[in-house]
Amino acid sequence: MTDIVIAGIGQTEVGEHWDISLRELAFDAIQAAVNDAGGLRPQALFVGNMLAPNLSNQAHLGALLADYAGLTGIEAVTIEAAGASGGAALRQGYIAVKSGMVDVALVVGVEKFTDKLGTDVEEAIATTSDADFEAVMGMSTTAQAALLMKRYMHEHQVPAGGFSGFALTAHANGAGNPKAMFQKAIKPETYAKAEMVSDPLNLFDIAPNADGAAALVLTRRDLLPSSWVNPLVKVAGSAAASDTLALHDRKDMLFFDTAQLSAGKAMKQVGLSLDGIDFFEYHDAFSIYAALQLEAVGFAVKGGGWKLAADGAIGLKGRIPCATMGGMKARGFPGGAAGVYQAVEAALQLRGQAGVNQVADARFGLIQSLGGPASTAVSHILERVE
Amino acid sequence: MTDIVIAGIGQTEVGEHWDISLRELAFDAIQAAVNDAGGLRPQALFVGNMLAPNLSNQAHLGALLADYAGLTGIEAVTIEAAGASGGAALRQGYIAVKSGMVDVALVVGVEKFTDKLGTDVEEAIATTSDADFEAVMGMSTTAQAALLMKRYMHEHQVPAGGFSGFALTAHANGAGNPKAMFQKAIKPETYAKAEMVSDPLNLFDIAPNADGAAALVLTRRDLLPSSWVNPLVKVAGSAAASDTLALHDRKDMLFFDTAQLSAGKAMKQVGLSLDGIDFFEYHDAFSIYAALQLEAVGFAVKGGGWKLAADGAIGLKGRIPCATMGGMKARGFPGGAAGVYQAVEAALQLRGQAGVNQVADARFGLIQSLGGPASTAVSHILERVE
Repeated sequence: MTDIVIAGIGQTEVGEHWDISLRELAFDAIQAAVNDAGGLRPQALFVGNMLAPNLSNQAHLGALLADYAGLTGIEAVTIEAAGASGGAALRQGYIAVKSGMVDVALVVGVEKFTDKLGTDVEEAIATTSDADFEAVMGMSTTAQAALLMKRYMHEHQVPAGGFSGFALTAHANGAGNPKAMFQKAIKPETYAKAEMVSDPLNLFDIAPNADGAAALVLTRRDLLPSSWVNPLVKVAGSAAASDTLALHDRKDMLFFDTAQLSAGKAMKQVGLSLDGIDFFEYHDAFSIYAALQLEAVGFAVKGGGWKLAADGAIGLKGRIPCATMGGMKARGFPGGAAGVYQAVEAALQLRGQAGVNQVADARFGLIQSLGGPASTAVSHILERVE
Repeated sequence: MTDIVIAGIGQTEVGEHWDISLRELAFDAIQAAVNDAGGLRPQALFVGNMLAPNLSNQAHLGALLADYAGLTGIEAVTIEAAGASGGAALRQGYIAVKSGMVDVALVVGVEKFTDKLGTDVEEAIATTSDADFEAVMGMSTTAQAALLMKRYMHEHQVPAGGFSGFALTAHANGAGNPKAMFQKAIKPETYAKAEMVSDPLNLFDIAPNADGAAALVLTRRDLLPSSWVNPLVKVAGSAAASDTLALHDRKDMLFFDTAQLSAGKAMKQVGLSLDGIDFFEYHDAFSIYAALQLEAVGFAVKGGGWKLAADGAIGLKGRIPCATMGGMKARGFPGGAAGVYQAVEAALQLRGQAGVNQVADARFGLIQSLGGPASTAVSHILERVE
């Protein structure tokens, strides 16, 4: 089996794009990715989107975006798995190329939060949790993350401010990413003084909802022209897993089973142990998610995830660099696009194009996209092609 | 490459299920399919759903339904392509098995229209058309179909009542399907006297929105136990295509390019011509769609689709039996489940289990699932395994 590679990448700046429509955002990312791939013509489009039917009154994004991108006719479909939609779209694109039914797959993640405001956004996001048993009771994903974090801090005796390392790292890295929503490092005092949103979650424990689109062109390596010059990144491992939507249905809500399961499967496909992974793009929609992913994947023992952040181990020169381009916290959280941003950023690292944020000699990157509190997890291992 | 087969099928009765929740509906179909497949354990779930984020306030159906079906842990994702969501989910499941990454895939289509009422339903359905250029102007899919039909009748000099054959055939066949919403044949007078909904579309030109779920278990034939007894159906061809969402962007709105393209590709994969197809499950959300599909696929010349229905050629003993279990008109139109119902019904035909509706000696069935006015088309050819 020939390698399946990322031949092109594209991303828009993440932020509040009041003046750009959903389809235009997606188009910008698609155009950049297709150009980067030397004009390879995609045969199939996989759209990662979380909330457009609610936020933008627009479903049926596959056909819409294929047409708007000048690719009318190709097969096109939307992949949804809440916040993991982007990772899931990448996985479907990968599977399609692997199946031999598609030679060139285009994956685009797109989300437009600013099409709605206030409680409309909250209500839209609530559709990703259990509508009949959580959302109907008024549970928001933020309140849910606060409950998780509170329990975690209690169980593991985390001091106040113990989670600050996640935000500090994210913002330090966001400063070096020209596509990030927040390109400014923050000081420990900033975190300490931040407004409390849902105790113990403060403003800096929460990734900002944002507009953005990111795209990838996937193909088989043997289909590339002999004149190919772009550095290549291989999709070396790919796996996904699901868990209950509602937290109350879990045996241990402080362990992200799906994060462990999907990362473990992906690593097994590559024949790789944790030592071999050069950086980890986790899904830090909330800092508590980041801590729990570090533990589930195995970078930290149970209860030790927050310490990795506190100790600086997740910095660009740390033991396991995380959120290397700012993560969801500083790059911003564009819903169903987030998982595709992770892949684009990881590709930049593996191509040696991450600028001041470059992880030295990065060969393997693990990216993990979550839907809800790891009700879905999609893990990919991307590898530098020598 | 070994055959990819449908090893199990399940479906709920289609109708207004006020007392059954979305997840319960899906569960009923999944349980039936998994039992029918002799308890093969699925490793991946592909959910075809069109509108649950709007109609049921519930996104993230993959993880939710996997868990509710007792399959917690498996990978699970929602596939959306408007009314073609069911066909698209089948295609993703097929691709996943073909890729070798998944041995046993579960495909479930589910829709619950009765979770909302009146204009909320209209608004939800409007998200499947172009939100910025059609829905915002007040265009509904029904009004759009009426415009298509009016133009068609003008271009091709169709007499009033010319479309009645579609409804008459559908209801005649629905009478023999115990899962159909309407199990009663209608008389020509019923059609002639039917209430006008959006001129020239009358009540019997429109398939009723309905609740329902259907499921399939797909696997590789070589993975089945040697003790296997269930008759098998092979997925012999699979293809999809996209077109503009907005009708005004098309060169010829009276030709369904995607229906032609996807059916043509699927037939080429099988090495089959139209003569070899024993029945056709079209997507008769509106009778005009059925006519245009018959033409695009090639069963009729341009402008001749309605005549096939008028001449009785689409009846169970006709030249090309269509809507053999009642189609969307009489079985009911459960949105994103519709394409999976088509596959279940075709499997019944190919297994010789279609009861009084059995198409004699059926070997190849073509099923086609549409999103909007063929903005998406997904075509599959199912084949009886001898």
